[in-house]
Amino acid sequence: MTETMSRPARNGVDVPTLFATLDAVKGAPQLADFQFRATNTWVKGTHSRSSIQGFYGAGQEDVSRTEAFSYDHDHPAVLVGTGQGPTPVEILLPAIAACLTSGLANIASARGITLRRVRSTVEGDIDLMGILGLDHQVRNGYRQIRVTFEVDGDATAEELRGLVEQSRRRSAVYDVLVNGTDVVIDVK
Amino acid sequence: MTETMSRPARNGVDVPTLFATLDAVKGAPQLADFQFRATNTWVKGTHSRSSIQGFYGAGQEDVSRTEAFSYDHDHPAVLVGTGQGPTPVEILLPAIAACLTSGLANIASARGITLRRVRSTVEGDIDLMGILGLDHQVRNGYRQIRVTFEVDGDATAEELRGLVEQSRRRSAVYDVLVNGTDVVIDVK
Repeated sequence: MTETMSRPARNGVDVPTLFATLDAVKGAPQLADFQFRATNTWVKGTHSRSSIQGFYGAGQEDVSRTEAFSYDHDHPAVLVGTGQGPTPVEILLPAIAACLTSGLANIASARGITLRRVRSTVEGDIDLMGILGLDHQVRNGYRQIRVTFEVDGDATAEELRGLVEQSRRRSAVYDVLVNGTDVVIDVK
Repeated sequence: MTETMSRPARNGVDVPTLFATLDAVKGAPQLADFQFRATNTWVKGTHSRSSIQGFYGAGQEDVSRTEAFSYDHDHPAVLVGTGQGPTPVEILLPAIAACLTSGLANIASARGITLRRVRSTVEGDIDLMGILGLDHQVRNGYRQIRVTFEVDGDATAEELRGLVEQSRRRSAVYDVLVNGTDVVIDVK
């Protein structure tokens, strides 16, 4: 711990602040209670638009985001939409890649490994007979998601693989996509 | 079926084409095999960028998207990032809202219900003691996601609720978030 505590910033990760944050949360676990949020507004047909801005965390409402992140969602023409954005189920794929990548960068930095390049591709196989209601034996969602990483950095191939593995162990998106979670849907 | 087959376009949904598509897939189930894809490239620190463009489906590589959809992901300052985008786990929230909304619009249109307004808010509760590695009793992902819909349209409150319920039954994102799926991670 003493060794890692003294590590400098690396890979664009402020390692001293990262460890100070861990220490602060260890001393006050309520700081780890977060609530993320989004809103969605239907536009037309299968086209809708989402917005992400505020969240609660570290004991307060976050005000660091002065502008909302906005996303369009739609079905492609072949699924009777107008292609104004990717289909909603597609954005699960960048979510898993990005979650593993940000974790990987933090872990590499904490371990003193300089990264040169991290790239990943994600594929999700889905049989639409499920959502189309044409085969009740077929699930609605992906039957498999595959993430393939290329990691180039100042470490052995085994150490670089270890970064991906440790990131998987601490990934919020991986946990939800593999284990599922409680989803409650209400209508006002 | 005859009645719904004869319904006109409504809510921006081309209902005759929707039913023709269902019929086409019923006659050739291999058309329902889809593969969605994304790529992600690490930028710096917890900042990465994803791209979504091509997919395989309806028996061929899709070429309808002439430009890629691009997404930035990052951690906010309070999580030692630079806030260049929402955190990866946040984008699961628009995914579920948008998936339910596009399904709802299709179902309403097939049922002859004109929609005036559909809006939803999503909240996801997560205890970061899990991903921070500070409490092994705490899961990494959301412990609960709540979606709240407001639906205004030319139907009774019960019929409008029924749209949300039927959309949930056919939602790809709902299925994955509730039941999980197989996620395979490789390093090249």
